[in-house]
Amino acid sequence: MHILITGGAGLLGSRLAKALLKRNTLADAQGVQQTISRITLLDVVAAHGFNDPRIQTITGDISDPEVVRAAVTPDTQSIFHLAAIVSGEAEANFDLGMRINLDATRLILERARHNRNCPRVVFTSSVAAFGGILPAQVLDSTPTTPQSSYGAQKVMGELLISDYSRKQFIDGRALRMPTVCVRPGAPNKAASSFASGIIREPLNGTVSVCPVAPGTALWLISPGKAIANLIHGHEIGSLLGASRALNLPGLSTTVGEMAQSLERVGGAAAAQRIRWQIDPAIERIVNSWPGDFLTTRANAMGFTRDASFDAIVQEYISEELKAGGK
Amino acid sequence: MHILITGGAGLLGSRLAKALLKRNTLADAQGVQQTISRITLLDVVAAHGFNDPRIQTITGDISDPEVVRAAVTPDTQSIFHLAAIVSGEAEANFDLGMRINLDATRLILERARHNRNCPRVVFTSSVAAFGGILPAQVLDSTPTTPQSSYGAQKVMGELLISDYSRKQFIDGRALRMPTVCVRPGAPNKAASSFASGIIREPLNGTVSVCPVAPGTALWLISPGKAIANLIHGHEIGSLLGASRALNLPGLSTTVGEMAQSLERVGGAAAAQRIRWQIDPAIERIVNSWPGDFLTTRANAMGFTRDASFDAIVQEYISEELKAGGK
Repeated sequence: MHILITGGAGLLGSRLAKALLKRNTLADAQGVQQTISRITLLDVVAAHGFNDPRIQTITGDISDPEVVRAAVTPDTQSIFHLAAIVSGEAEANFDLGMRINLDATRLILERARHNRNCPRVVFTSSVAAFGGILPAQVLDSTPTTPQSSYGAQKVMGELLISDYSRKQFIDGRALRMPTVCVRPGAPNKAASSFASGIIREPLNGTVSVCPVAPGTALWLISPGKAIANLIHGHEIGSLLGASRALNLPGLSTTVGEMAQSLERVGGAAAAQRIRWQIDPAIERIVNSWPGDFLTTRANAMGFTRDASFDAIVQEYISEELKAGGK
Repeated sequence: MHILITGGAGLLGSRLAKALLKRNTLADAQGVQQTISRITLLDVVAAHGFNDPRIQTITGDISDPEVVRAAVTPDTQSIFHLAAIVSGEAEANFDLGMRINLDATRLILERARHNRNCPRVVFTSSVAAFGGILPAQVLDSTPTTPQSSYGAQKVMGELLISDYSRKQFIDGRALRMPTVCVRPGAPNKAASSFASGIIREPLNGTVSVCPVAPGTALWLISPGKAIANLIHGHEIGSLLGASRALNLPGLSTTVGEMAQSLERVGGAAAAQRIRWQIDPAIERIVNSWPGDFLTTRANAMGFTRDASFDAIVQEYISEELKAGGK
């Protein structure tokens, strides 16, 4: 069993690889559990922190056909396509977003089609698929109306995943991920980067700027649950219905409630390290995203969510701070 | 005022050109009516039947960047992007459909963006944007779930039109056209080709095979109304809302009712020239399309539909048969 993870050096990619190594098996195209013989981590920067003979790393640009050819081999039975230009950067650099989020996705799907082995492909889509005037809760039947280039590119990726699956070129699943929080490490160019920053930085003793109002609602998932749902999305037999795209469960909370969780779990001093200062460009993108969903379809399929935001903050403290993570 | 029509040699393209020549003015980017100085007809085959100094024809492949560069010039203020690989052909030849319906659309939008004059772009999408399990009437809020490669490519085009418009690269409008019927001329590779064939061929004295059951519902528009709505879609100030895609009004009718109209308007002998013989490949695609819509948004914007299918048949007889058309 050979698995490819694009974005393999990122937070989700490297955590997913670790979870798969530990698990040691994954379903093949027929749904039969196979021993994992190789996991290829493809990213524009080198993946590190692995000392396992099953890990192969490829460093390169996923919009380069030669790189994709080296990564998607005829024995690639599973692809987790996580690599993307994040929301804030795709909005600032339209061409880069199109090249990585759309063109590279096509390259990967085309290579998989070329190999004629119908691999399972798990593609990470996003709450940014939705936007504009939305119902209080986004339903499985709510139409996708992205209000960012990132969101538009993700929905185009979903359409490719669905059509390539319908044509039996691949067996794809496009999972619309909630905002992953609390991410360890440094801020990134996602418009949602603050959602992790306002928890992580204060717990690490430094100040963090919150660029949106306290009433802003977000749809969140912890890194641990995100990984569990990515693997679950790979393992389930099929995504029934007219589309391979699926809204994943999450936790609806406001930024103000997140600050209260931080105070409860991390202490008053930590909470006081949040500086509230609106950034209109970020606020416009974040406010276009839905903050609450009713994920009937995904719940019935066995996808799960975090118990509370307090539990998410606690998980970050236990796994990252106490383990000496950054 | 310079206008580009892609697919300019086709039924809609050439009729649109004639209607624009007669009209002689069109709204510019600021909504001001300007005299039409040039209409460029771009198609893979030469457009003919024009004897007007305002008409320029370019024969070439719209997926060729040089062809697009020649067609979308810095003074192009309006683009009607009608060129497409039709549904049946895009299903049979996936790569060709992607190249023309997606890649060429991107080339045209990129060239318009490059020119920095924010042209109005009218893009013809389709009822094939919808599929799977649908409500009895498709609403403006029904999500797009295409069940054909043509439909998937059209929805990707809509997403491009919406995002390029949001970024103010263009001022786009994606109009989801009903099936156009009765088309004069020869059958084409659209899965819906029979909808015109079962009226046109019997009226011309020859037999036509209907590949779907009489109960199959279709959403139809006459060529005349289609042209009127394309021009109206260009002229309206803006398409409000989170998406530039719009369901156009049409007439909901079953194939059996169409045969009855043929008998009423064209006579019993004509109706007896329909042979009923199911083609599963065509039936699968056509049955994935909705047969009825509630087009509240488009109706409010002033788009119009035909009075009855009898009137559509009568229009074909008056305009094509009696005018000596084929």
